[in-house]
Amino acid sequence: MENKKLCLIQRPIGSVQQNDFAIQQEPIPQIDDGEVLIRNQFISLDPAMRGWMSELKSYVPPVPLGQVMRAYTGGVVVESKNPNFKRGEFVTGLGGVQTHFVSSGKRLLVVDTTLAPLEKYVGGLGMPGRTAYFGLLEIAKPQLGETLVVSAAAGAVGSVVGQIGKIYGCRVVGIAGGEEKCRHVVENLGFDACIDYKSPAFYRSLKGLCPNGIDIYFDNVGGFILDAVLSRMNKFGRIPVCGMISLYNAKEKPQGPQNIVSVLVNRIRMQGFIVFDYADKYAQASNQLGQWYTDGKLRLYEDIRDGGIEVFPAVFGALFSGKKRGKLLLRV
Amino acid sequence: MENKKLCLIQRPIGSVQQNDFAIQQEPIPQIDDGEVLIRNQFISLDPAMRGWMSELKSYVPPVPLGQVMRAYTGGVVVESKNPNFKRGEFVTGLGGVQTHFVSSGKRLLVVDTTLAPLEKYVGGLGMPGRTAYFGLLEIAKPQLGETLVVSAAAGAVGSVVGQIGKIYGCRVVGIAGGEEKCRHVVENLGFDACIDYKSPAFYRSLKGLCPNGIDIYFDNVGGFILDAVLSRMNKFGRIPVCGMISLYNAKEKPQGPQNIVSVLVNRIRMQGFIVFDYADKYAQASNQLGQWYTDGKLRLYEDIRDGGIEVFPAVFGALFSGKKRGKLLLRV
Repeated sequence: MENKKLCLIQRPIGSVQQNDFAIQQEPIPQIDDGEVLIRNQFISLDPAMRGWMSELKSYVPPVPLGQVMRAYTGGVVVESKNPNFKRGEFVTGLGGVQTHFVSSGKRLLVVDTTLAPLEKYVGGLGMPGRTAYFGLLEIAKPQLGETLVVSAAAGAVGSVVGQIGKIYGCRVVGIAGGEEKCRHVVENLGFDACIDYKSPAFYRSLKGLCPNGIDIYFDNVGGFILDAVLSRMNKFGRIPVCGMISLYNAKEKPQGPQNIVSVLVNRIRMQGFIVFDYADKYAQASNQLGQWYTDGKLRLYEDIRDGGIEVFPAVFGALFSGKKRGKLLLRV
Repeated sequence: MENKKLCLIQRPIGSVQQNDFAIQQEPIPQIDDGEVLIRNQFISLDPAMRGWMSELKSYVPPVPLGQVMRAYTGGVVVESKNPNFKRGEFVTGLGGVQTHFVSSGKRLLVVDTTLAPLEKYVGGLGMPGRTAYFGLLEIAKPQLGETLVVSAAAGAVGSVVGQIGKIYGCRVVGIAGGEEKCRHVVENLGFDACIDYKSPAFYRSLKGLCPNGIDIYFDNVGGFILDAVLSRMNKFGRIPVCGMISLYNAKEKPQGPQNIVSVLVNRIRMQGFIVFDYADKYAQASNQLGQWYTDGKLRLYEDIRDGGIEVFPAVFGALFSGKKRGKLLLRV
């Protein structure tokens, strides 16, 4: 049996290109005692992966050149010499962009596919859902009646942030690209409103749809949207910084937020976070997200692409072009 | 008896000009029961006052046109119909740029000039000292062995921040303008090092003098210094934002920090604050600052200018030109 894997062979400049990667085949080794062999079924495509491809200092080491591209995956156990995992069980983990992987069992999570299909556990019930959960509840700490603005509102993280905000009694205003996505955010996800950042009415809408100002801005994008929101923040506002996707493909240094002085004047707390920092509370988040999903309070959408690991570079681009809706996944 | 006062008659554009103000004389009214009449001896000049002159939304209302310029002052009680204040006692309060003022006694603080001269209570034992105290201890929460960088290190707030940092066992690196100020910061204030931001070696020095990165940046200035420090911050770093003096006289929107993405990658907490938010803890701060001063652990320098309230506009400019050392005060 062979493993087919996608390796990073050069560091992308700007947008990811097909020739930054190469496909390799290798025989699957015999697993040792304590190990588990998994066949990947879904590969998660996340904006943070763009950072992992670069050689800049970051919160995890860069993917080494020549090695398989790092990725979250969902798959099925095909062989196990570890008592915690049984053949046929479904799991999520850092499986990489490949058809199979061998794990020591560390950070491998068994999921219950009788409650939700596997793809949900790679999406809103998995890492993106936990990211939304900790960023909103641990950093922003929303209060009843506050106004919460979320960028990339139709995306894997943003869509969950806004729905949790509604559960906590906030007025929730999304920001997304294009009328169709905005309609989805309001009609399917239940946000109070959604603003198209591509519209010339963006600034006017931000003011009009947040008549009491903005108490929390969950930032997934950085750039001019962060800058615009800064000028509308209320006193003692909170800005969990989850991502700055507008900068990830930048070839030159971007312009910084000109309204940064709002942090001082309005006593804003702006705080970056990474979901890994909350690893000791993953179970709490997963249980709560699963409960909300089962209760119908949390709707999860995936955008599942076919074509196998070969099409990874092209599909990855959809994260940045805005041409996707919900959690982007590649079917293996 | 007459009161002479300096009134704001137009909103400054860029740097403050003499003709933004006018001197007025008025008879001092009879005080009512509960009131106190104070003769000002020192007027505090603080960067935040530039904000009070503008009509932009801020944390306090703008000074109304035609009214006396708002300012902290230290003075002596010349008449009292309030049982809490006695003739001859020294007090600090929001007395304004004028020779006399009448107070209800609210927010008027009696100080003990046998422990320290009055000017210290308008400086490091007063509002600037409390600002340093709360920003560093309540927001940054310094830990033993951490590296603390402070901008405007020779100034009223920065000089106290760094000295408290030393008391808490931090490596303290100041940033100031010019070799002479930097020498003062190291030799008289006891910082471990001080970097001249006007030097071409600024970036190199910031790296070399903070070999373990920066855990806390106490920001008084914003602008390119904030941007440079952002690129050297450690994981879980804290940035109390106390001031952005580099922006206060800007006529056009300034450039924002291009390294803002460091907030995300390094999980930085950047948090604006205003000393007023800690009013219920003023006594705690004042007692502790006074104790450190008495124990010789806190050195306080004032730059006292003569010439009366007439020269306020010209002296105020020294806050921004860098031509002063320590707390800037005007003798009435």
